[in-house]
Amino acid sequence: MDIQKVVPEGKLPGSAVPYFIRSGEGERYLVGGLVADLVARGNDTGELFEAAVLTGGRDANFPLHTHARTHEALLVLDGEVELWLGQEHYLLIQGDYASIPEGTPHAFSMRSHRTRLVSWSTGKEMSSLYKALGQPYAGHVQPPDAKPELSRELLKKAEASADVRFTGKAPGRGTPKRVTNGTLPGRKAPYVLASGEGERLVAGDQLFSFLGDSRTSDGRFLIVMTEGPSGPMIPAHFHEKHTETFMCLDGSMTMRVNDQTLTLSPGDFVHAPARTIHAYQLNSHYTRFVGLLTPGLFEPFFRTLGDPYTAYVYPRTPPPFRFDRVLSKLDQLDLKLIAPPAPAK
Amino acid sequence: MDIQKVVPEGKLPGSAVPYFIRSGEGERYLVGGLVADLVARGNDTGELFEAAVLTGGRDANFPLHTHARTHEALLVLDGEVELWLGQEHYLLIQGDYASIPEGTPHAFSMRSHRTRLVSWSTGKEMSSLYKALGQPYAGHVQPPDAKPELSRELLKKAEASADVRFTGKAPGRGTPKRVTNGTLPGRKAPYVLASGEGERLVAGDQLFSFLGDSRTSDGRFLIVMTEGPSGPMIPAHFHEKHTETFMCLDGSMTMRVNDQTLTLSPGDFVHAPARTIHAYQLNSHYTRFVGLLTPGLFEPFFRTLGDPYTAYVYPRTPPPFRFDRVLSKLDQLDLKLIAPPAPAK
Repeated sequence: MDIQKVVPEGKLPGSAVPYFIRSGEGERYLVGGLVADLVARGNDTGELFEAAVLTGGRDANFPLHTHARTHEALLVLDGEVELWLGQEHYLLIQGDYASIPEGTPHAFSMRSHRTRLVSWSTGKEMSSLYKALGQPYAGHVQPPDAKPELSRELLKKAEASADVRFTGKAPGRGTPKRVTNGTLPGRKAPYVLASGEGERLVAGDQLFSFLGDSRTSDGRFLIVMTEGPSGPMIPAHFHEKHTETFMCLDGSMTMRVNDQTLTLSPGDFVHAPARTIHAYQLNSHYTRFVGLLTPGLFEPFFRTLGDPYTAYVYPRTPPPFRFDRVLSKLDQLDLKLIAPPAPAK
Repeated sequence: MDIQKVVPEGKLPGSAVPYFIRSGEGERYLVGGLVADLVARGNDTGELFEAAVLTGGRDANFPLHTHARTHEALLVLDGEVELWLGQEHYLLIQGDYASIPEGTPHAFSMRSHRTRLVSWSTGKEMSSLYKALGQPYAGHVQPPDAKPELSRELLKKAEASADVRFTGKAPGRGTPKRVTNGTLPGRKAPYVLASGEGERLVAGDQLFSFLGDSRTSDGRFLIVMTEGPSGPMIPAHFHEKHTETFMCLDGSMTMRVNDQTLTLSPGDFVHAPARTIHAYQLNSHYTRFVGLLTPGLFEPFFRTLGDPYTAYVYPRTPPPFRFDRVLSKLDQLDLKLIAPPAPAK
């Protein structure tokens, strides 16, 4: 098997190879009142997906719009966000999640002086949206005098080059509902999840939460949150058929990515396309990371390894780690283990 | 001048010397549904102040109580907290702040599955509160089956050994108000501040926000938030008369503390008592830390160095750094600069 190098830190590769981008070091655009930090563009992922971190202050917003082909998912990293989603109007805070299938009208407006969210999207048509609406930007936070308005001309320009249609209607006013939902809808539909919610499984001392599963994305992707205490490196492995990404949210984690060892702090991002050897280790007393896995075919692995879990924090007394359950069906689960290197003499 | 060593990482010193504690590594107690991680006890600070990080899940709470002598201040680090403060009932999220002068009835209840806040308090009587109400605890998060109730016997025990009086009344129900306030009251009174608010000053590329000032604490302490982009180490210095603390909240920072160089990640804590040589450097594109400074006599330094600032994010184009303004009154401002070491040959 060929081993791809991880491209140098701080540089998006422009082809679908493994790479590592530190927090804030993606390709950036100033879009109205917010900074769109592209950490994965279509040409970095073989057009499988894109990802961007959006940072803005109060009133930074995206007006009401619809994607015809792009399924988007949002996770609030910091602050408070008003989200209009279909007929609903929500207030999201740090850790809250939204799934926005293609064809769903949506808009958001940031409420906090420092608001951050990560947006994952299928395909390759969201980067061009930020490029059309924004200007290349060297900064990492919005300028103090940022103006949140996006002109009608800019919206038209974006419609011509990206998968977006602005409805022209203002989103409804009124009091948004705080997100309280805890369960996935079991089919592709717009939904929100409160922080810490989703379908939870435990495997050893780690808690996995599906924020998005194969049913809610028609098999296109999974969004999985992982949390746990410090522990050993998991076994190095690769996947033949699906791509994984890792964004550290709390604490610190070490990753092996092909022949490199990387340390991730909050906001740091790793892209591990199919056939990338990888493994992770949680370093802090509470470490948390979130990943998009695409296509969404790795769900049976988690269901085989883990057990349903009702609590909302990693276990104090871990159940036995049942890796034996997956060993008998590695191929079926799209998992290839790498033999550990021979011990040094 | 004697130079104290920074005591080894991961160990509270038991005397008022400089020290460094990584996130989660203080002295821990399980108090009902929450973990109280004491990062500064009275005997670590010469009885000047104490500090604890409280981590819990939904419904972890502290019932209605009053401190007769202790002024407490809270900053929400993660999640959502209901706070009863005097006659008010608030909903606080990440970044929101509360000042709770002695004699103010207050209670809180965590609303998120992962909720964290830092509590600073004057004097030496809060650690004994957590010790009386809790049990020593080796974990770093609450157990999945944590019970939030604190028995009447425990509350009585705490009243006998700590500066606390439980009122016995349940806090009022109803809908809490989201925190929106942006200004300090100008006198010692209970108040809350929304995330990013407070009195803001800019000096070079760094934004300083007073969450608590000398007027709101009768000169006992300041609570100052600092944010900025990556930059050089500030000049090494010490203070004759006041103690400073540093808790990293976002990004990464390097500190010189006497003869050691430390790297702080979110949640890591440094205690720099009077006469500790120290300096800091912000490493990330967005780094933020918060400090308690006690007694509250260093406010004129910030007012001399900085200029009033109305925006909510560090400046894109920094104004000139006017260190010249403080150089002429170092003694008056309680600032002693350390000559830079001679360049290596």
